[in-house]
Amino acid sequence: MRKAPSLPGKAMALALALFPLIFFMVVESSLSSFDKSSHSTFDRINQLPGQPQVSYQQFSGYVTVDEKKQRALFYYFVEAEIDPASKPLVLWLNGGPGCSSLGVGAFSENGPFRPSGKMLVRNEHSWNREANMLYLETPIGVGFSYSSDSSSYVTVNDKITGTDNLVFLHNWFAKFPQYRNRSLFISGESYAGHYVPQLAEIMLQFNKKQKLFNLKGIALGNPVLEFATDFNSRAEFFWSHGLISDSTYKSFTSTCNYSRYVSEYNRGTVSPTCSRVVSLVNRETSRFVDKYDVTLDVCIPSVLSQSKVLSPKQVTETVDVCVEDETVSYLNRRDVQNALHARLVGVNGWLVCSNILDYEMLDLEVPTISIVGKLVKAGVPVLVYSGDQDSVIPLIGSRRLVHGLAEELGLKTTVPYRVWFAGMQVGGWTQVYGDILSFATIRGASHEVPFSQPARSLVLFKAFLEGRPLPEAF
Amino acid sequence: MRKAPSLPGKAMALALALFPLIFFMVVESSLSSFDKSSHSTFDRINQLPGQPQVSYQQFSGYVTVDEKKQRALFYYFVEAEIDPASKPLVLWLNGGPGCSSLGVGAFSENGPFRPSGKMLVRNEHSWNREANMLYLETPIGVGFSYSSDSSSYVTVNDKITGTDNLVFLHNWFAKFPQYRNRSLFISGESYAGHYVPQLAEIMLQFNKKQKLFNLKGIALGNPVLEFATDFNSRAEFFWSHGLISDSTYKSFTSTCNYSRYVSEYNRGTVSPTCSRVVSLVNRETSRFVDKYDVTLDVCIPSVLSQSKVLSPKQVTETVDVCVEDETVSYLNRRDVQNALHARLVGVNGWLVCSNILDYEMLDLEVPTISIVGKLVKAGVPVLVYSGDQDSVIPLIGSRRLVHGLAEELGLKTTVPYRVWFAGMQVGGWTQVYGDILSFATIRGASHEVPFSQPARSLVLFKAFLEGRPLPEAF
Repeated sequence: MRKAPSLPGKAMALALALFPLIFFMVVESSLSSFDKSSHSTFDRINQLPGQPQVSYQQFSGYVTVDEKKQRALFYYFVEAEIDPASKPLVLWLNGGPGCSSLGVGAFSENGPFRPSGKMLVRNEHSWNREANMLYLETPIGVGFSYSSDSSSYVTVNDKITGTDNLVFLHNWFAKFPQYRNRSLFISGESYAGHYVPQLAEIMLQFNKKQKLFNLKGIALGNPVLEFATDFNSRAEFFWSHGLISDSTYKSFTSTCNYSRYVSEYNRGTVSPTCSRVVSLVNRETSRFVDKYDVTLDVCIPSVLSQSKVLSPKQVTETVDVCVEDETVSYLNRRDVQNALHARLVGVNGWLVCSNILDYEMLDLEVPTISIVGKLVKAGVPVLVYSGDQDSVIPLIGSRRLVHGLAEELGLKTTVPYRVWFAGMQVGGWTQVYGDILSFATIRGASHEVPFSQPARSLVLFKAFLEGRPLPEAF
Repeated sequence: MRKAPSLPGKAMALALALFPLIFFMVVESSLSSFDKSSHSTFDRINQLPGQPQVSYQQFSGYVTVDEKKQRALFYYFVEAEIDPASKPLVLWLNGGPGCSSLGVGAFSENGPFRPSGKMLVRNEHSWNREANMLYLETPIGVGFSYSSDSSSYVTVNDKITGTDNLVFLHNWFAKFPQYRNRSLFISGESYAGHYVPQLAEIMLQFNKKQKLFNLKGIALGNPVLEFATDFNSRAEFFWSHGLISDSTYKSFTSTCNYSRYVSEYNRGTVSPTCSRVVSLVNRETSRFVDKYDVTLDVCIPSVLSQSKVLSPKQVTETVDVCVEDETVSYLNRRDVQNALHARLVGVNGWLVCSNILDYEMLDLEVPTISIVGKLVKAGVPVLVYSGDQDSVIPLIGSRRLVHGLAEELGLKTTVPYRVWFAGMQVGGWTQVYGDILSFATIRGASHEVPFSQPARSLVLFKAFLEGRPLPEAF
């Protein structure tokens, strides 16, 4: 998730048909209509405007997931810096629902470059040091992904997203056949706590019919896994980090808690009780505090919605808190869009989070921690990690959910709760259960971990890919 | 407090005689023995080695508080940068008990310079921009303060410290008569949550006899005010910030809590139960995490006790986490000691925290929040502030204590819990009761607030001196 709830409440989809049946029908039809003339060479990026010279290849473009409605998903693919043939393939998904993996994941978090004015500056801790990184703008309606039929944006839900993502990957392999049998990891953050386990689950189902996906593990950053636990941790996080008073904390845990408020909000029935409490919470926490990182500065022009040009650049932190504004400017340049082979269809510009997508917000309340449990039982390694300065999906809830799942599955602790190291400092804390289910915090990190702690995130990522516990010493 | 408990348990002092009687006897005798030939000019500092040019005056030296036992307290006094005659006098006290206001307060926190190699670098946010700053090494046995009779270091307690501090100030006014009627504020942190209210209280008592102290307010940073509330907040802070696991949190709040452990420790009777729990907590939190700021890096040479010279300087943060090591080097130089008019008596070197002082640690358990209440009732403005990254005396406890005191005194909220601003960013949160009792957090700040957030601390300090609420906007 990236934005506070902002969509109107919607009614639950009336009939949820039997999943596997529908699923295979959809996938088969999408696959058969796939235009086999596409090749990765057409998608090759010669050079992004302002980009420093690099030795590895980049690709971007569209993969059609539904020929009839011309539904096409946009991707950005960065091969590994060194010896890509020996490195795994990692799919990265941002959350929202409705936020862009290109603008957030690739250009603000773990991609090779970050926009700065007219230039791209190198990210020394890009995840393509360890893997071939595939960023997908999903679902349809996000960023450069589009449908020619705008009804496709209405009541998009987790099931549609999962199927589209699977079809995307299937068809993407046709463009990049050399990656077909490569070790595959899926990673993502926030609402991707829904997307990633759901996609992994249907991959395993698909594999029963045709072994296509060589899935080696999933990594979930500050993910929504169980609505109430995740959302109600926010009150405790606010309180323990000083953002709300003792009395407001009391109201926020007894009179109305956050999951109740979000539930009411998504159904269009906010009660006066919850409205009062949330107003109080919002007033105390203030819009000048980044809820995704309570210690980081905020981008003042962005908060005030003033012109970026008039305001001085903030350089108080080593992290560029205005990177989102920079990304919006960069990705809306015509020359950049041309270089990316990107089109704007039915929208005026590229946005960080979609304003045309009408997502089924009630899916938020469906727990995915149970799917995570199924994946673990199927032998898929899972890492849940938490940037510890994030109040939106706080570490407290994620840690509790992972610990609870381990107990439920009867997994013993194989690495006790302990610190881990990155660059001669504590990178955070970790615990591993049954050598397959891991939890980790990243110290001093935001909701978007690789954005605020790039070096620590790369250490985390490398250990995850190698299936090793995080470094115990330095 | 600066160090974890490290003194052996000691028996409670047997007889606590009637306080005011003893107090005035001691003070009278000290005052009468005061050597009136001392003058501030002898204490004037020409130039500290490596110091940049400044326009204001500095003084340091000794004030005898007990002629018979040659007990003398060392002070460092920095006049305000601009127009000192118009600025108030502020006494700064560090805690411990047993840590130095010179090395910690002046040279690592809010003084005009910080040591860096052989040089002193200017602190742009020195509190002498707003006040005439007086740093006192107290009690006897701390830093350069000494007694010629080493028995003076045994069973020093809050009462002795308070009396000595008052006698010091009385006699210091004889050296600096121009400050005698100046507005006086007392500030300090940590265990100074004992020293400061206690000193303020006896000042008010003294004033009944002879109006000497023009006390205008006290400010307490991450202070110990009520043992159990302050110390038991640590478990919640650790847990909510990711330093301990759910199961350890449970043990640390049910099997043995921290106040019980410290109590047992100070009585030399640590139970196997508490020993087990605290071992687990220590293992999980790790010595590589700075408990005084859980997000800041640690000074690795210092943690590993390696030679500073061999290890690379850490420049990952804008804050020099090795400033303590730098200060120890600097203050142990003979030329620096000469420039400061400092002597080493009965010790081999200057230390950040005394190893000869044998403080009555059971005083820790005596609440001083009630004294704070008395001061407020007597019309003395009080500010309690909290660096929000400190797990040692966490904001959670301080906030609860201040709120509780306000309720007890029947003080209404005059500034609701809200953010305050410094440099176009949220500096923290604040609440004011009855226009006299204030609470504030400092965002991203350590136990030693002006060390880790110098700019924010200066905004806080200025508002405190002016008796205004913290900035509501920018």
